[in-house]
Amino acid sequence: MTDITDLQHTAGPIESGDPTDDARAFRRALGQFATGVTVVTTSADDQLVGMVVNSFSAVSLDPPLVLWSIRKESKSGPAFLQNGHFGISILADDQMDVSGLFGRPVPDQFSQVEWTAGGRGAPLMVGAIAHLECVNEAVLDGGDHHILVGRVERLARFDGAPLLFAQGQYGVAESHPALADSPSLPAAPSRDLSEDMLFLSLLKATDQHMSALFQDYRHEVGVTPATGRVLNRLSVGSCTQETLEHDTFLGENTVEEALSDLLRSGQVSRAAGDTWALTELGRQVQTELRRSAAQYTAQQLHGIADKDVAAAERVLRTLLSRGDNEQ
Amino acid sequence: MTDITDLQHTAGPIESGDPTDDARAFRRALGQFATGVTVVTTSADDQLVGMVVNSFSAVSLDPPLVLWSIRKESKSGPAFLQNGHFGISILADDQMDVSGLFGRPVPDQFSQVEWTAGGRGAPLMVGAIAHLECVNEAVLDGGDHHILVGRVERLARFDGAPLLFAQGQYGVAESHPALADSPSLPAAPSRDLSEDMLFLSLLKATDQHMSALFQDYRHEVGVTPATGRVLNRLSVGSCTQETLEHDTFLGENTVEEALSDLLRSGQVSRAAGDTWALTELGRQVQTELRRSAAQYTAQQLHGIADKDVAAAERVLRTLLSRGDNEQ
Repeated sequence: MTDITDLQHTAGPIESGDPTDDARAFRRALGQFATGVTVVTTSADDQLVGMVVNSFSAVSLDPPLVLWSIRKESKSGPAFLQNGHFGISILADDQMDVSGLFGRPVPDQFSQVEWTAGGRGAPLMVGAIAHLECVNEAVLDGGDHHILVGRVERLARFDGAPLLFAQGQYGVAESHPALADSPSLPAAPSRDLSEDMLFLSLLKATDQHMSALFQDYRHEVGVTPATGRVLNRLSVGSCTQETLEHDTFLGENTVEEALSDLLRSGQVSRAAGDTWALTELGRQVQTELRRSAAQYTAQQLHGIADKDVAAAERVLRTLLSRGDNEQ
Repeated sequence: MTDITDLQHTAGPIESGDPTDDARAFRRALGQFATGVTVVTTSADDQLVGMVVNSFSAVSLDPPLVLWSIRKESKSGPAFLQNGHFGISILADDQMDVSGLFGRPVPDQFSQVEWTAGGRGAPLMVGAIAHLECVNEAVLDGGDHHILVGRVERLARFDGAPLLFAQGQYGVAESHPALADSPSLPAAPSRDLSEDMLFLSLLKATDQHMSALFQDYRHEVGVTPATGRVLNRLSVGSCTQETLEHDTFLGENTVEEALSDLLRSGQVSRAAGDTWALTELGRQVQTELRRSAAQYTAQQLHGIADKDVAAAERVLRTLLSRGDNEQ
């Protein structure tokens, strides 16, 4: 449905219409809203249940209420409705593995991760940036989902940055570039400082600028981040969709869509035993992608003296090794 | 309540407890969940109403439902309940100004921004990355808020990246560093490529590494991004809280908390006519902050040949100017 040529700097919508006509288009539109990632858990006796949730939302300060939604057909639904309590862990940016673990039902999930029990027994993920211990306040109707409203009995907030899920992939938050010449350095109080821009500020500004330019370029080449990542993973060997999700760190829906786009364009095929493989065309496209990234880099560096590039590389590599043994 | 020494690499919580005892601590814990930013609008006759909302959440695919929450005391509440329809615009990363405009009631908001009318008349922000046109499906009780469930009649998805709000400030999403050696370049299919790492990948990796190191350093120095930004803004002149919010791009709650922390530690004072000013101590701290950022940069560059740093600066400045007249 999404023609890649539509992606090229158009002001009009990439797609539009009635969401009842196309659930996948609706899901993609909803995916434009970035969210944090939580693991919601509950417990009864020694039975533990947990799942990744990004429909979390703050509702009320007084009383302290939050909500999230669960598919009516979810196997975990009855536990959350009956136990009457749940724990929410807001994941940190280094907990992508925890998100992966609770992204689908896996046996012994709780033995593979560090957690502590909340007051009512719900597991809380160690390393999360916030824990909210809740009792069910209301279960509301939300179409094919239940909306669970929880009253927060206890909170804990920890140091750290949030894991993000945006546009079908994991991310981390960066301060907005407009906030300062360098997001992590105190903002320059006057124009003076920016003329004598600190090297680290210059580094950040350049990185953000090149990323933005590369995104434009990638659109022109006609590849999305998801299809590119799936092609790259398959180029080292066939694997199942589940392995693809794990290795590319992309969400289930995103991998499904990338595979379906690549299948339609003849770049992947189904192989034996539920696995996916690159076709000859897919291999050509993947090789071309790698070449174009190298070419793009060469193009941006064109006109800069080789010895300057070599010196810049030395500086960056030295900075990249900072902190390894100092702390 | 938050002692800055607690921020130094502790595994324990920064704060914890019963949310009914401390609404601000609860708000800070909720703020750990990153979100996109939306403007929700409605219209009746020629009366337009709009507000910034980050409690948006996807609920159901079939039927297509979304929800958001509005304070029961909000002056805009009656319009949203009575008009029976609303439009949601999910803002792009370059729409921080639109978010600022609808963050508080301002006369003539809609004359200061480009919008189009949805099918039922609700304004939809031009430049947003998604539009959802909804009719009220249900209004549910959510403590001090109403939970508005909307049935989506029409969607549109646009090219672009999302604006974020996380931990009290605006941000942009970056692909997770673990996803590839460079988030915006196709992932390296083997170890070979990373030895011969593309320059732009090296640039990104270095920037992310230095940002992480600087965050550790800033904690040790004892300054949060918000207090640092407020100090910097006040160092160029006294101003109202509203101006602070505008100029620092921080949320209302975040500025309020930063001011209250700074007031308690004697770094700011209330001046005439609702404005805030730096005290002598505040001025010293701000000067020290600027010096420490410069010092930190110098420290990281220590041991690297001056001519290499100069060459690296030339390369970065050239890259930073790319794209200015090419497209």
